[in-house]
Parts: sequence; C-alpha cells; structure tokens
Amino acid sequence: MNSKKHVDYGEKLTCSISADHTLTGCRFSLAPMSDRFIDIILGAVKKTDTSKVWSDTDELSTIYRGRRIHVWDALKACFINAYTEGVHMTMEATVSKGCPGDTLADSYMALDDNLVNESFIADIHFPTVVKFALYPMGIPDYMRYIADVVNRSIDLGIYDRTAHYVTVLKGDVQDIFSFLEEASAYCEDAVSHYIMEITFAVNLSEEQAL
Amino acid sequence: MNSKKHVDYGEKLTCSISADHTLTGCRFSLAPMSDRFIDIILGAVKKTDTSKVWSDTDELSTIYRGRRIHVWDALKACFINAYTEGVHMTMEATVSKGCPGDTLADSYMALDDNLVNESFIADIHFPTVVKFALYPMGIPDYMRYIADVVNRSIDLGIYDRTAHYVTVLKGDVQDIFSFLEEASAYCEDAVSHYIMEITFAVNLSEEQAL
Repeated sequence: MNSKKHVDYGEKLTCSISADHTLTGCRFSLAPMSDRFIDIILGAVKKTDTSKVWSDTDELSTIYRGRRIHVWDALKACFINAYTEGVHMTMEATVSKGCPGDTLADSYMALDDNLVNESFIADIHFPTVVKFALYPMGIPDYMRYIADVVNRSIDLGIYDRTAHYVTVLKGDVQDIFSFLEEASAYCEDAVSHYIMEITFAVNLSEEQAL
Repeated sequence: MNSKKHVDYGEKLTCSISADHTLTGCRFSLAPMSDRFIDIILGAVKKTDTSKVWSDTDELSTIYRGRRIHVWDALKACFINAYTEGVHMTMEATVSKGCPGDTLADSYMALDDNLVNESFIADIHFPTVVKFALYPMGIPDYMRYIADVVNRSIDLGIYDRTAHYVTVLKGDVQDIFSFLEEASAYCEDAVSHYIMEITFAVNLSEEQAL
C-alpha cells in the first residue's frame, strides 16, 4: 500500500466549479541567450511596476495574479523591459483563467483601471515573433473558440501561419500584445477555463534560432 | 466585409473526430543562456538521430512527429545532447496527440520499436527541474486525469510541489523522462486529445533563474 500523500482536487474535479472569473494569472520565464542573462532578467523584473498585481518569482518563473488588465500590463512591461538590442531572447508565458483547482489566494485585485506600466512602454517598438496556442478547457467544441481567436489575428494582420501545434504571429510588440489582451478578454467571456501558451521571440534569425 | 482568408477547421470543430491516435508530436525550443547558444543548439540538433521520426526545424522550434516512443527518444536525446556543463539552459516542449485539426501529413511512423538514441544517452545523469502542465481536451472531467498523472509523479518521488499553473518536478534527467513517457502513454489510452506543456531547466540557482 502506498502511503505517499496524493493530491486531491476534491469537489473541483470538473470544470463546473470555477474560481472567481475575474482572477487572471500568468507564469512566465525570460530566456535571454547571453552570458549577461542574469542582469537582463533581474533588471526587467525590478523595473516592472507590480503594485497592481500579486507577484512572486521562484527558481523557474515569475507569476503575476490579479485583474486581467493589470496582469497584461505587467507582463508586457516585463518583456519590453527585458528587451536588449542585439540579444536573442524568448519569453515563454502561460496565461490562465478559471482553473477549477485555483482559488483567490495569492492574488491582488486592484480596484481601479489605471495601468501603471503602459505610459512607460507604449512608445517602444520592435519586431516580435510569437508561437501561440489556446486551450479552452472542459468543453467538446473547443476548436471553434480557437478558430475565432486565430481568425481575429488574421483580421489584424499579425497572423503568419498555422504550424504544427501552434499559430505563428509576427508583428510589432505593441500589436502583438494588443491582440493577446483582446483574445484574453474574449476567452474570459466565452469559456469558463482557458489557458494560453505563448512564446515570444526577439532578435532572431533563421540560422540562429531553433 | 472582410475579405481576408480565415482558417476553417471544418468538420473537425469538436474533439469527436481525432487524427490517427498512434501519431504523437512535439515542438520544442532550446534556450541555452550563453553567448554560445547557436553552437549548443545546432550541435544538439545535428547529434540527435531523427531517422525514426519526421523532423523539421523552423525559426522558433524543432518539431518531431511519429510514433510516441520514437518521438520521446528523439526529444530526450536532443535535450541531453544540448546539456553543457555550467550553462543554464531551458527547453520548452509541447507534446501533443489527437488534435482534431491534425492529420497524418508530416509524420513518419517507423515500424519497429528499436530506439535509435537511447543507448547513447541512457548513462548520462544530471539534475533537472521541470514545470509540467497537462491539458486533456474536450471533456468536462479533465481534472481527474491531471490528478492521476500528478499522483504518479508523487509515487515516483520526483514531485516537488504544486505551484500556480504548473506542477514542479525535480529529479535525475532519466527519471524525469521516464515519468513523462509513461504519462504520455497513459494519456494516449485515456483521452482522445491531450497536450503536455513542459519546461525543463538545468544548471540553475535561485538567484540566477527567473
């Protein structure tokens, strides 16, 4: 008999019980491919104003949790703050809302809509390539929501191609984040639990990037 | 009226129609945080025997598609081949099976079970920290499959903790891959479409890793 303590998601085994749907979270990891990666990562984390989200950095990632608009404001800021001329970098981010196993613990729900980072980053532009995947959970017709979101990226002119397991987007960093935030708002209304897996890449060339 | 060409997943809008369930695929990106990242990535890609999978490298990732055991053999080999003493590196991997939008195109289904990389990598050991998330698609009771898989990692002694949006695993690279392959086999039988998002990290310390 195995005596190890198991996880038990209890009554939350199905998606019918979701956490407060106003709580959005993200977990992300910056990977600057440079000997200076520590300075770049820590510099970006420190420069980003996280006063309107709950924030934690562990050995693998940084996590922001709060209202959707403030989570996106902080995530976008940290990425832009980490951008370094000539340094190839990726940022892998999981954005999630409505996980049945989630609670309101470890969150900060700022009441006002004033974005604390946007004014410092709104005028910064650089090309960004993105791998994007959307997972609407717990429903049989999830492909139609994915199609809606991908088609929106086509309308916005940032769709590059459908590839195995991802949609590839290309565009200015401002347009990319604008689309992702809009997709996140759409999913918040349309499904009870969704996850977005996004990998942003900058300063890459065909021969250098895997 | 918008005349841009949209995606259309057609009859495959629900998970009831799945691709041949023997086809597994992965898309992964290595991120060695070093000025030597190009040599490390390309060296690992070239060293890995991909004769039993379909393989492609684009500007963002490498993709392997084929039978589950050969996809895992190649993925494990490429990660181990990229491991470089003293270099902090992550590998972000999406493993997927059964996507309704998938087809048998771009795949190679090797008939025999002989793993072409395993004998070269089976004796290589180093500690690995992993972020792991499982997404069983199209079904309301997906949390129970996630719990099954997480509990298996607890039984195997590689479970570190449940964290926001991921399960953190820690262990020798051989034990980590052994668990992931087993979880993949379990999911192949249990659900029609699943995705695993896994980020492997090596040579990291609390102060250097985000």
